[in-house]
Amino acid sequence: MARVEERRSTGLEAWRARFESLRLREGEAFTSISGAEVEPLATPETVEIDYGRDLGYPGAFPFTRGVYPSMYRGRLWTMRQFAGFGTAEETNARFRYLLEHGQTGLSCAFDMPALMGVDSDSPRAVGEVGREGVAVASLEDMRVLFAGIPLGEVSTSMTINSSAAIALAMYLVVGEEQGVARERLRGTIQTDILKEYIAQKEFIFPPGPSLRLVTDMVEFCAAEMPLWHPISISGYHIREAGSTAAQELAFTLKNGFTYVEWALARGLDVDSFAPRLSFFFNAHLDFFEEIAKYRAARRIWARELRDRYGARDERSLLMRFHTQTAGVSLTWQQPLVNVARTAIEALAAVLGGTQSLHTNSYDEALALPTEDAVRLALRTQQVIAHETGVVNTIDPLGGSYHVEALTNRLEAEAYELFHRIDELGGMVAAIEQNMPQREIADAAYRYQQEVEAEQRVVVGVNRYQTETDDEIPILRIDPELERKQIERLHAFKARRDSAAVERRIAELSEAASVDGRNLMPVIVDAVSDGVTLGEICDAWRTVWGTWREQPVF
Amino acid sequence: MARVEERRSTGLEAWRARFESLRLREGEAFTSISGAEVEPLATPETVEIDYGRDLGYPGAFPFTRGVYPSMYRGRLWTMRQFAGFGTAEETNARFRYLLEHGQTGLSCAFDMPALMGVDSDSPRAVGEVGREGVAVASLEDMRVLFAGIPLGEVSTSMTINSSAAIALAMYLVVGEEQGVARERLRGTIQTDILKEYIAQKEFIFPPGPSLRLVTDMVEFCAAEMPLWHPISISGYHIREAGSTAAQELAFTLKNGFTYVEWALARGLDVDSFAPRLSFFFNAHLDFFEEIAKYRAARRIWARELRDRYGARDERSLLMRFHTQTAGVSLTWQQPLVNVARTAIEALAAVLGGTQSLHTNSYDEALALPTEDAVRLALRTQQVIAHETGVVNTIDPLGGSYHVEALTNRLEAEAYELFHRIDELGGMVAAIEQNMPQREIADAAYRYQQEVEAEQRVVVGVNRYQTETDDEIPILRIDPELERKQIERLHAFKARRDSAAVERRIAELSEAASVDGRNLMPVIVDAVSDGVTLGEICDAWRTVWGTWREQPVF
Repeated sequence: MARVEERRSTGLEAWRARFESLRLREGEAFTSISGAEVEPLATPETVEIDYGRDLGYPGAFPFTRGVYPSMYRGRLWTMRQFAGFGTAEETNARFRYLLEHGQTGLSCAFDMPALMGVDSDSPRAVGEVGREGVAVASLEDMRVLFAGIPLGEVSTSMTINSSAAIALAMYLVVGEEQGVARERLRGTIQTDILKEYIAQKEFIFPPGPSLRLVTDMVEFCAAEMPLWHPISISGYHIREAGSTAAQELAFTLKNGFTYVEWALARGLDVDSFAPRLSFFFNAHLDFFEEIAKYRAARRIWARELRDRYGARDERSLLMRFHTQTAGVSLTWQQPLVNVARTAIEALAAVLGGTQSLHTNSYDEALALPTEDAVRLALRTQQVIAHETGVVNTIDPLGGSYHVEALTNRLEAEAYELFHRIDELGGMVAAIEQNMPQREIADAAYRYQQEVEAEQRVVVGVNRYQTETDDEIPILRIDPELERKQIERLHAFKARRDSAAVERRIAELSEAASVDGRNLMPVIVDAVSDGVTLGEICDAWRTVWGTWREQPVF
Repeated sequence: MARVEERRSTGLEAWRARFESLRLREGEAFTSISGAEVEPLATPETVEIDYGRDLGYPGAFPFTRGVYPSMYRGRLWTMRQFAGFGTAEETNARFRYLLEHGQTGLSCAFDMPALMGVDSDSPRAVGEVGREGVAVASLEDMRVLFAGIPLGEVSTSMTINSSAAIALAMYLVVGEEQGVARERLRGTIQTDILKEYIAQKEFIFPPGPSLRLVTDMVEFCAAEMPLWHPISISGYHIREAGSTAAQELAFTLKNGFTYVEWALARGLDVDSFAPRLSFFFNAHLDFFEEIAKYRAARRIWARELRDRYGARDERSLLMRFHTQTAGVSLTWQQPLVNVARTAIEALAAVLGGTQSLHTNSYDEALALPTEDAVRLALRTQQVIAHETGVVNTIDPLGGSYHVEALTNRLEAEAYELFHRIDELGGMVAAIEQNMPQREIADAAYRYQQEVEAEQRVVVGVNRYQTETDDEIPILRIDPELERKQIERLHAFKARRDSAAVERRIAELSEAASVDGRNLMPVIVDAVSDGVTLGEICDAWRTVWGTWREQPVF
């Protein structure tokens, strides 16, 4: 045995000596897209792998190799294209189109007024109605959105945060109108307000009341909607804001721990809600760093839930996640090149063991995607699932010296960031001190500098440009949609029992001012009686006030 | 230590028991695209890895991890798009277009008349001139083809086999006319006639004289063109004909050994020519099987060259290869989906350590590629090279239990096929007995059956079809080109010294009938004096006769 060891060691040194004597390419940095140094070679000597401790088996602690014992042999990931624009009618048509073409779950984008808690007829909504997502203000909009789609059979993801509880209540009521009991509704609502303060900036209320709303939803779903994921703890937007992979990993998991701590403080048993927490990560271009990120996330989440938060149910340890390919990696120049970028990003998500995937359409750097573009993006997932064979083996990269070393590195970097956040007093305190915001801004700045210095080549942007870019079809949104949406909303408001509306609004205000009272049943009653999303948020604004961020610099 | 071992073993058994108790997806086969069983999980217990023996270090025996110590840190692969259509003028314009857009080497497709050794004005050429490659009959055509392209600076690959020696001679003469000595010309010529008998079927002469021509080229290049690769031993066409990955690997390497044996029989020192042998593999869709194939090929070639053929120069052991993504994997249905397929195939080639790469254009299942389509294919390589980070680490999949197990499996399957071929009396005898042809036909039939039974899903073909396919621009070839090409050829023939032509043709016939006389200098003289490609092949047809294949079934 000693002889073999000796030969190995000699081999590595001999390789290194030869490597260092050679001329390397100049110009581009040999760092990851996150700016981390990348080892030119990983070998058994350069990475420590304790298989039982660090990897284990799929479906068993620490879940590095996957949350389920059979992974894609049992079931493929859910192919879930994020969609939403115009009025509820238009988005309903897009949903049906996607289901017809083989999509296996729905994912709904709401427009900016809905995200910011104002109705389509508000002066603050002008020009934004249905522009970047579907316009939803009333229960009627939600009914139209899911008309003819059997909510007992599909699973739906809704991307909405500050006003998430209202959207969830509307979905629940529409489901029950369809005859589907709330216990049977399957899906996810984003709800992740902490990443809004950190990165996406679509917040309404201060952190305290926001976290109380989140906790209300966690508690409500644990009791009444056992198949629903009340939070999708999201690194996606953190990454899109320019963070590194390690920051995305660390801030997301730390946000997750924060939600767990609030729910525990509410008096919930960790195993009553933790199995329904879910995650949402970015699939950026740095292929192996991304795969390592997902593997590290599973290992850290499982360990912390078990050892720090005392989970005893194995399902509480499972870091299950949706993935979306990186919007920021798309270029408006030579847009068809985005098909190749997205294919590689999607492959990383699958090799990292994702449970659900959105592939961006190649035209998304220019506009909302056309039907043809979104179908091509879906086809990309189908090719990976059915033609590349990568679904046949669980965690196919497990054991790769390089991938295991990267997984270890990302894990260590995440713990370092956890430690720094703890020193500031936890995530809410760190956000109030702008720590994550500043870290992300610094990373985004470094990346931009690298692109400008051409240490990082972006095809078609700072190299390989063409004089003219391919002309591609662009989705045009009906210029009349704002008027139509406002007309429907006014007609809806006119039909309501206005005394009931007044009463529900008073209830909402009163309940909001009582700490520890779960708001979800109150919201369900309010939307059932026709109170709109904007009216509910207005009631809370009066009680809780609104949040303004301090400038980062 | 025993305790850890014990836990590991328990873990694997526990995982297997859980896995076997679960319901798996139905319908699709859990086999590779080659029909091989795929293990659901690879772990340290399921694969034997002796690092020093099986992997070693990049640039060191057995070269599993790469032929060079620095790999893509030193130099990226050559981005080399195969191109050729119409007359020499049109292909010359396409070459310049590709070089302008960042391509780093040329790759020339010849038309069917050139490949089959007839001139453009032959009755056998009607309808085929310039259709699937560039029309080249005379030295004048070759001059036009490379006009304004400095042959001392680019490297050129030429895909031509039966008539390869003539194309090489013409390139050499055009190079010298440009003032570039033959010692400085860099490039590759396919020359691999054995795979023509096996798969591609573009042969003229019987195996004996064909192998003598190959050996003449090997000997000539060893002495006079030290930077030229006289053979590109090609699995590509074997795979395109429907072989499995293991067959592609085994038949290609066995063809390579056969060329080595012929050169040794000629009396050459293995180290005088082996460093200039090169390879050409397919990058098909089965991601990990393909990567394993390249890694196994390096290990086998190095071992056999050292241990069986006695190579002492390390450069003789290096299996360097060009890759092309799989033409057969492209669909004419929904052609833009091919961009995603090709991106993933190209990524496999790069993770497998290719030295050179052609990415197919998405429109190639419909026609020869347009400029825009070929640029997009090139951009796909540039994205992998500059944006995905996979070039920063050598053999990033090394150590992956799954990939190492696949590498071992492909190696074992290749040795099994070598053994069967040896039992038939070697590769030429095996071809004469139709053994490789039959093996490939069987594999192709099995695959087709799987597609028909929907055990294998092809997106857009047997699932996820659409009523109408995207309309894409199609390259139209000038209908006048055949006439123009024939006019140029006639004008060229009219200008020649006909007595010199007669004399050279007599020399070609005479030299061909003398075994062991190197034909290359005779061919160089003949093309210099204006003898055409068809005339040279006619002279040899008279001496050697032609080859007809026995039907496989």
